[in-house]
Amino acid sequence: MDAPRLARLIDAAEGRVPCDAIVKDVRYLDVFTCTWRQGDLAIHDGHLVGLEPGLSGRRVFEGRSRAVVPGFCDAHVHLESSPLTPRHFQRAVLGRGTTTAICDPHELANVIGVPGIRYFLDAAGSMALNLRVMLSSCVPATDFETNGGGTIDAAALTGLMHHPKALGLAEMMNVPGVLHADPAVLAKLAAFSGRRIDGHCPLVRGRDLSAYAAAGISSCHESSELEEAREKLTKGIAVWIREGSVAKDLRALAPLLTMATSTSIGFCTDDRNPLDIAREGHIDWLVRSAIGLGVAPEIAYRSASFSVARHYGLARRGAIAPGYVGDLVLLDDAETCAISEVLVGGVPVGELDLDGAHDGGEARNTVRAQMPEAHDLEGPKGSVHVIEVRAGRILTDRAVMAHDAEGVARLSVLERYGHGQKPANAYVRGFGKSMRGAIASSVGHDSHNLIVVGTNPDDMRTALGALIASSGGFCVVQGGTVWAHLPLPIGGLMSPDEPAVVARALEDLHRASHHIGCELPEPFLQLAFLSLPVIPSLKLTDRGLMDVDAFQLIDVRAA
Amino acid sequence: MDAPRLARLIDAAEGRVPCDAIVKDVRYLDVFTCTWRQGDLAIHDGHLVGLEPGLSGRRVFEGRSRAVVPGFCDAHVHLESSPLTPRHFQRAVLGRGTTTAICDPHELANVIGVPGIRYFLDAAGSMALNLRVMLSSCVPATDFETNGGGTIDAAALTGLMHHPKALGLAEMMNVPGVLHADPAVLAKLAAFSGRRIDGHCPLVRGRDLSAYAAAGISSCHESSELEEAREKLTKGIAVWIREGSVAKDLRALAPLLTMATSTSIGFCTDDRNPLDIAREGHIDWLVRSAIGLGVAPEIAYRSASFSVARHYGLARRGAIAPGYVGDLVLLDDAETCAISEVLVGGVPVGELDLDGAHDGGEARNTVRAQMPEAHDLEGPKGSVHVIEVRAGRILTDRAVMAHDAEGVARLSVLERYGHGQKPANAYVRGFGKSMRGAIASSVGHDSHNLIVVGTNPDDMRTALGALIASSGGFCVVQGGTVWAHLPLPIGGLMSPDEPAVVARALEDLHRASHHIGCELPEPFLQLAFLSLPVIPSLKLTDRGLMDVDAFQLIDVRAA
Repeated sequence: MDAPRLARLIDAAEGRVPCDAIVKDVRYLDVFTCTWRQGDLAIHDGHLVGLEPGLSGRRVFEGRSRAVVPGFCDAHVHLESSPLTPRHFQRAVLGRGTTTAICDPHELANVIGVPGIRYFLDAAGSMALNLRVMLSSCVPATDFETNGGGTIDAAALTGLMHHPKALGLAEMMNVPGVLHADPAVLAKLAAFSGRRIDGHCPLVRGRDLSAYAAAGISSCHESSELEEAREKLTKGIAVWIREGSVAKDLRALAPLLTMATSTSIGFCTDDRNPLDIAREGHIDWLVRSAIGLGVAPEIAYRSASFSVARHYGLARRGAIAPGYVGDLVLLDDAETCAISEVLVGGVPVGELDLDGAHDGGEARNTVRAQMPEAHDLEGPKGSVHVIEVRAGRILTDRAVMAHDAEGVARLSVLERYGHGQKPANAYVRGFGKSMRGAIASSVGHDSHNLIVVGTNPDDMRTALGALIASSGGFCVVQGGTVWAHLPLPIGGLMSPDEPAVVARALEDLHRASHHIGCELPEPFLQLAFLSLPVIPSLKLTDRGLMDVDAFQLIDVRAA
Repeated sequence: MDAPRLARLIDAAEGRVPCDAIVKDVRYLDVFTCTWRQGDLAIHDGHLVGLEPGLSGRRVFEGRSRAVVPGFCDAHVHLESSPLTPRHFQRAVLGRGTTTAICDPHELANVIGVPGIRYFLDAAGSMALNLRVMLSSCVPATDFETNGGGTIDAAALTGLMHHPKALGLAEMMNVPGVLHADPAVLAKLAAFSGRRIDGHCPLVRGRDLSAYAAAGISSCHESSELEEAREKLTKGIAVWIREGSVAKDLRALAPLLTMATSTSIGFCTDDRNPLDIAREGHIDWLVRSAIGLGVAPEIAYRSASFSVARHYGLARRGAIAPGYVGDLVLLDDAETCAISEVLVGGVPVGELDLDGAHDGGEARNTVRAQMPEAHDLEGPKGSVHVIEVRAGRILTDRAVMAHDAEGVARLSVLERYGHGQKPANAYVRGFGKSMRGAIASSVGHDSHNLIVVGTNPDDMRTALGALIASSGGFCVVQGGTVWAHLPLPIGGLMSPDEPAVVARALEDLHRASHHIGCELPEPFLQLAFLSLPVIPSLKLTDRGLMDVDAFQLIDVRAA
């Protein structure tokens, strides 16, 4: 903050000039003492400058019976999963009270490399949402798949770390690399020593967790069990409680959130689609649910704002106090997190220019897959390893059975970065015994090759063809007809359209997928994780069937 | 932290190599959840690497019935006031459990300028104590006195801010400068925007406090009243509770320290002499006293360590968790903060090399005062303004009375930076009605000219002569004899001697001062604040009598 702006804030605080706005006679949350107080919130030049009555404002928001809390902070989110562009993402979440988001551009970085990170760094500069970027630490995620972004090494990350929107190193998913002191991994951790390093260590405990913490990793959003999260806290790893569209951890972890732990616990969404944002909410959903599960409102609101801002060193965010940015959530009811109005820098969301952030043309046209023949999509026959999908879980089970047993569908992953590879073919069960047709996605963690599940090669080809034609997307096919299709031309991950348009398209896709017999409530999100070779136990990448437990590729044929 | 060291920590955490040390089967404080836990604390290469049993150590500390808490952090201290050099200061406090100190070299900076700050930055590099430096913001403190360090402006401070031991901008004492948006002050605040900026705002409330907070100032150690401190917390200003040798605020502020506020409250000593450190303690004294006043031990210990470390962004300090520096305080009894042993990076204090830090020869020979004649020490006669000293307070009262009224003594300040000025003379009451002789000091906040209180010019001359001969110090004179004398040749502020030697000399000085009739328990500390023109209400600088309330120099003669 420069001196002239400091002078403006001081002059306004002292009453020498009228403030831009006053939220008058309102109950507000003091996050430092976790107490509700009554006051007049004076805002000038985007910042709070006073808490007591007496200052005048050019504009007055009547407090009425409302309560005010600091704008929410999403501690960890992949914007690509929304699947909205930054400017449309902010349109979806600002009204939900999320005014700060810590993002990891891991997906786009896997598709196009460093420019994928720069895309979000640049977008952050022209957004109303306070978007901060953790630099993607694991591109590629493993050596068992083909990505478009190549390898982003410590040197490349160091070149980005001083960008004003860069905060630190994003989720270190390569847990084995850390625990075995892999030099390339340690080079990244060492480069970001003294900055924040996010973790990703589901179910890691004991000595392994100690080693992981000793490496300087200080947060994790992957806890799903209470004792797991408790151990992380004790070991200095802040716990970000996640409610994504698939992974939902709040119910299990809410008992951990108390006054004592509240400054080390925050909320995040990780991967959350606009349907869920529209229906349930964003961070407000976590706050509301936490309170419903017995967390005191002032503790829930503190974790939703101050705790995360403080963790990431955002000194002027996450509190209602002079000098803090005037990101405020006005609530009709604090107990139910019923949002009345959201101010960003003291300005109502409805009055903000949300079209400033650019749309990233450089990330278009990234799908360069070669259309396979029908016979290329035939897997081995007989006794095969089958991936078993469980609704709402990204971990899979595994089984050995006949390739044509009941409920077993074909699964193929097609490399899409112009190497002309043939698809890798395997089998999956759990999409639905009566499913007929194909469902395909260009979102396939973490390399985002094309992934298609189906019951016959023709529908699978049609689906892949639709995705290639639209430079990425989601689609549902049956009998040669594309029943629903959401193009995702930006990196094969994101739509250029508005949240409402995307939400409607997702509804169409859901409806179509259920129409063709798919039983999973979120088939696209689950499909997207079927190629992620770091989550147990059996996955399919463009190079073949991955036994994550053994950490190697295996033959689809059972021995 | 570099990659090889990270690898060593990870290997030790995983049990692939034996650890350096284990504190076995001990109760330790988890500051993240504010809970006592039982475990084996494994330390390797200076850092904690494990909390559970099972790792082996080359050395074992038996936990027995002891409890372990993180090393204490002094949130704000002027080392010069100890008056020990950095290496001897650590000798005095490490055994008391203080393993981190955030210092402000304000005194030495006033004497010799930027080299005074560099002295502490350099010393920090070779100390066992984790010394961090806030860069002195107010040199000179005012335009009403002559210092040796000249003006340290924003450009000079910016030149130091990237030193690895520099944390931010030290206490911004120029409250009027902030509130009136003085350009030179704002230039400093703007330069340190995004870094931590410490405050100094005794009794500032309401709009003024809001304006001060809006300027980005985020801590204050000058609260003496509960409601004052409560308001600071609410306005985002962390409260450092101080127990110095003169200023003692714990009793008033302890009720504010709860689980909710504990991460925004810390402890500091500001100015504390080695006698008090030896007799009562250092930060351990604050912990012990806070518990005695009803604060839960786990809250007191959290505030004494984690809260301050986190505030200043010391990511690997202030907690017992893997990756954190092995600065541990072993307690025989947590309730009374009875210290059994202190480990610094896992090594007992007694085994540390504490002689590494250099002694700062460059700061010697800074007293270049011209010896005054006896008649130069004569003030005006008749009805005069008299400074009224109150035991244990740095604020003074004021009165108008005859220059030779009962209990009134002479007070002179002699510029000592080679400008050849004549002394400024005035009157003071409160040292003792039956005092005969003189007490002199080269410690005289903030410009550290020579200050002498006495009952006759001859003894005052003798005292000044002794200080000039020793290049600074404290002395007590009566009847032409120097009864006690502690040379402070480093900047006229610090002794090169060991804490025990300095403590003994201070005892001698106290005894001698009482022997000549001084009634104040801490005459030197109080004398040192009689020239500080920013603390109300009447002070004497080398330029004359300062009416702090009117913020101008006034005639000693009463109108």
